[in-house]
Amino acid sequence: MRDEQFVALPPGYELWVMRGGFGELFGPVYMDRANSRMAFRVDRQHTNPVEGLHGGAMATFIDANIAVCYTRPDMHCPTINLTVDYMRPAKRGDLVEADVSMLRVTKNLVFMQSIVRVGETPIARANGVYRNDGIPAR
Amino acid sequence: MRDEQFVALPPGYELWVMRGGFGELFGPVYMDRANSRMAFRVDRQHTNPVEGLHGGAMATFIDANIAVCYTRPDMHCPTINLTVDYMRPAKRGDLVEADVSMLRVTKNLVFMQSIVRVGETPIARANGVYRNDGIPAR
Amino acid sequence: MRDEQFVALPPGYELWVMRGGFGELFGPVYMDRANSRMAFRVDRQHTNPVEGLHGGAMATFIDANIAVCYTRPDMHCPTINLTVDYMRPAKRGDLVEADVSMLRVTKNLVFMQSIVRVGETPIARANGVYRNDGIPAR
Amino acid sequence: MRDEQFVALPPGYELWVMRGGFGELFGPVYMDRANSRMAFRVDRQHTNPVEGLHGGAMATFIDANIAVCYTRPDMHCPTINLTVDYMRPAKRGDLVEADVSMLRVTKNLVFMQSIVRVGETPIARANGVYRNDGIPAR
Repeated sequence: MRDEQFVALPPGYELWVMRGGFGELFGPVYMDRANSRMAFRVDRQHTNPVEGLHGGAMATFIDANIAVCYTRPDMHCPTINLTVDYMRPAKRGDLVEADVSMLRVTKNLVFMQSIVRVGETPIARANGVYRNDGIPAR
Repeated sequence: MRDEQFVALPPGYELWVMRGGFGELFGPVYMDRANSRMAFRVDRQHTNPVEGLHGGAMATFIDANIAVCYTRPDMHCPTINLTVDYMRPAKRGDLVEADVSMLRVTKNLVFMQSIVRVGETPIARANGVYRNDGIPAR
Repeated sequence: MRDEQFVALPPGYELWVMRGGFGELFGPVYMDRANSRMAFRVDRQHTNPVEGLHGGAMATFIDANIAVCYTRPDMHCPTINLTVDYMRPAKRGDLVEADVSMLRVTKNLVFMQSIVRVGETPIARANGVYRNDGIPAR
Repeated sequence: MRDEQFVALPPGYELWVMRGGFGELFGPVYMDRANSRMAFRVDRQHTNPVEGLHGGAMATFIDANIAVCYTRPDMHCPTINLTVDYMRPAKRGDLVEADVSMLRVTKNLVFMQSIVRVGETPIARANGVYRNDGIPAR
C-alpha cells in the first residue's frame, strides 16, 4: 500500500516509529529534537478521498508533536484540547514539517503550538493543551 | 490486526466504509443519518501506546462526522478549523458514538458540533468549521 | 451612554452584576441558574464599529457563563482555553441568551459549552476549559 | 476610573483609539504596524474580580489585533473563529504586547495568530479565522 520511492530521510532528521495501533498504521515519522521539528512524507495511507492529506492524519501528526519532540518514552501526557486551522492542502509525496514550540509548562499543564509547512509554505497552525506527566515546569 | 469479535452492527446504524487511504485504515464506521449520529468500535488500529483511543483517531472520527451525516458523496467540504476537547479516555472495545449538529450553514461556511460519548457518558466535545461545497444555507 | 428603554428583566431571569473593572463596564447580565442560562441585552457599550455586537463582548459574556451559572462567589476558576465560533451577528437591542452545559468536571479541570442565541436562532457556539476551584467532580 | 500614572507611550508604538462602544470602553491601545505588534497597559477597566487581567479583556484585545495591525479603516473582517489559550495571569500595570502574524489570506478567509507577552514572558496564545474583506490574498 505504501509507495516505495520515498525512502530517503530528510537531512537533520532521525527515523521515529510511533507505538500503539494507530501510530503503527500512520507509519514512520521523522524527528529532529535539537531543532524541535517533526516531519512525515504524505503517502497513500494518509490521504482523503480527493488524494490530499486527510484532516485526521494532519491532526494525528500534530497530536504526536509533543511526544516526539519533548517527552521521554515512559511519559504519557494526555491531550486536553487540540485546535487545528487548516490553511492549505497537502498532496501525496509532500514532505510535511512541523515547527513545534512548548510555550508554557505548569505543574499540571503543557501548552504547545505547531506551525506545519511544506517547504517554507505554512499549511496548518495548531495548538494543544496537554496534562503534564513529568515535564519540568518552565 | 483487527479483533473479530466485534461484528454486530449497533441498533439503528448502517455500515459505512470511508473512502481514501486514511479512511480505509481507520476501518468501518456506523452511520444513522436520521438521527444525525455516527459511531465506531474502538479496535486495535485506533489505540495509543497505553491501549486507549488515540487522540488522532478521535479527531479523525470527528472530522468525518460532517461527511457521514450531512454531505452527498460528490461533495467535499474541506476543514477550516477543528477543535477537540478530550474529556475522558475510551478503551478498546468501547462503542464510541457522536451526536452531530449542524448549527449554521452560510453560502461559504458550515459550522458543526459533536458531542462524543460512550453510552451516556460524554468523552469528547468538538466543533468544526468547514468550507461549504453545496449544502443549502440555513 | 446606555439606552434606557431596555429595563424589563426577561422572564425567568434574575439580575446579576459582575464584579471587577471589566465586568462593571460590561454592565448587568441576567442569570437563570435553574435552567443553566445566562443573558444580556446588547447595548451601546457592547458594539463594534459597524453597530453590531463586538466579538470581544461576546467572548466576555461567554467567559462569564461558568461563573454566573456554576460557581459560588468565593470560587475563581481561571480560564485555560476559550474557543468561540461566531455564526451570525447580533445588533443593538437584541436579547442574547446562552444555554450553558458543564460537560465534565475533574479534580483539576472544568469543561463547559455554550450555545448562544437570539430567540431560537443560534448566533455563536463556544467551549471553555477552566481550572477547577472547588466544583465537585462529575 | 482609570489610573493616571500610565501615560507614557511604549517605545516604537503609536496611540490608537478603537471605535465603537466596546472599543471606547476598553480604552486606548498602542500599535506598531511596522513590526506587526499591538499593546495596551492593564488598567482598572480591564480587571477581573481578583485584580488580574479579565479573560474577556484579553480576548477583546486579541480580536482587535487583525484590525490594528492589518486592515484599513474602511474594512470590516468579521470574526469566524477565535481561540485563546491563557497561559499566565497579567496584573494591573503590566504592559501587554501581542506579536501578530497573518499566516494565510485566501479570497474569503484570513488566518491570524498572536503570541501575547509581558516583557519576554508569554502569557497567552491565540488564533483567529476572519472573513476577508479586502486584504490581498497571499
